[in-house]
Amino acid sequence: MASHPRIAILGGTGKEGSGLALRWARAGYPIAIGSRDPERARHTVERLRPLASSAELVGLSNAEAAAWGTVVVIAVPYEGHAAILQALRDTLARKLIVDIVVPLDPNNPRRYAPPPDGSATAEAQRILGPEAPVVGAFHNISYLHLHNLGETPECDVLVVGDHHEAKAQVIALAEAIGFTAYDAGPLANAPIVEGLTAVLIGLNMRYKARGVGIRITGIPGKKQEPVQTNRS
Amino acid sequence: MASHPRIAILGGTGKEGSGLALRWARAGYPIAIGSRDPERARHTVERLRPLASSAELVGLSNAEAAAWGTVVVIAVPYEGHAAILQALRDTLARKLIVDIVVPLDPNNPRRYAPPPDGSATAEAQRILGPEAPVVGAFHNISYLHLHNLGETPECDVLVVGDHHEAKAQVIALAEAIGFTAYDAGPLANAPIVEGLTAVLIGLNMRYKARGVGIRITGIPGKKQEPVQTNRS
Repeated sequence: MASHPRIAILGGTGKEGSGLALRWARAGYPIAIGSRDPERARHTVERLRPLASSAELVGLSNAEAAAWGTVVVIAVPYEGHAAILQALRDTLARKLIVDIVVPLDPNNPRRYAPPPDGSATAEAQRILGPEAPVVGAFHNISYLHLHNLGETPECDVLVVGDHHEAKAQVIALAEAIGFTAYDAGPLANAPIVEGLTAVLIGLNMRYKARGVGIRITGIPGKKQEPVQTNRS
Repeated sequence: MASHPRIAILGGTGKEGSGLALRWARAGYPIAIGSRDPERARHTVERLRPLASSAELVGLSNAEAAAWGTVVVIAVPYEGHAAILQALRDTLARKLIVDIVVPLDPNNPRRYAPPPDGSATAEAQRILGPEAPVVGAFHNISYLHLHNLGETPECDVLVVGDHHEAKAQVIALAEAIGFTAYDAGPLANAPIVEGLTAVLIGLNMRYKARGVGIRITGIPGKKQEPVQTNRS
């Protein structure tokens, strides 16, 4: 993988997608924000640009962004998850797909509501087929931490999927913006890692907190120093 | 709840059960180790006694232990989980049940293999019925941390179940032996919390570590000082 692949974020106008865009842009990655409405994508780009002045940052339709990126992050609301993957299946072949979507009960965001495939990540892998390696990651990172640039997020990234090389690339992308990231196992573990988001949302509510996260303990060698991502 | 309820640990000769027995005994709780073979239970008691000299510590059959305790911890291998609960159903009525069992694939301990109920905790609650509040807890704590008395385990306890008062009691029992413990939501979250154990086992293997754990971040008020549990 080139040291700075182009990263397209479908649904990149949302809180989580735009937060990742901001962090990667500040770390020097070329970024496309994708949206159903390219005008909204450009609006998000203008909002982020002062915080990432030196970066290549463009606003496109989701289809244009998918074609543009070599890494494509799926950050749409779960309701549109299967539809966008089906629509862009050919465009996404042979790209590295990073799925950050968590299917939650629309009536209760503390409740994980996986699709029949078992997880959103597995649903994406089934729809895209073996030609597009799908990696689930970043589910447990609160958008609050991504947008608060004064903060190194105190939350680790758990990466799941059946493609080892793809997982290694996503771990490197997470570490490039200051996270400690772990290979959390095969696609079969995606329900656990996605579901943990519902547990964390419940902890936020129950303990009147914001941005609750998790840290993995007991792997001292993996602990990295906070990375300064502000390049402006 | 009395400040020091009697805690019976069914399957208490195992690594995890005996580790919890040791910690609670040292914190002053009366403990019964239960086993299918009472002779093995007494053997475990003799092994633990020098480390918990002042505590009431007895070895019994599982049935005797279940009758003796006001808190009953289910720590049997998953293969015997449903059978012991069915056999002791009447004895366990109106007791506080703490289920620490994680159903793993016998051929691959990195793989969570939940029963048709969705989780071991849900299976226990179904078998015992509404008269016995079942709380899932301690799944993610490596036995290594429990037996290493020089160490304050760097792993938090996630507590799940549908009975709020029972969860509060289990959180207090966890905090009494030095853990930070959290109400991680309803019984419906048990697959996530149990399944996390399989993820942690995978991390142990993948990163050549032992006793990988998790910490919840972002709830500063909950962070407690390490508790000294050595009363001898």
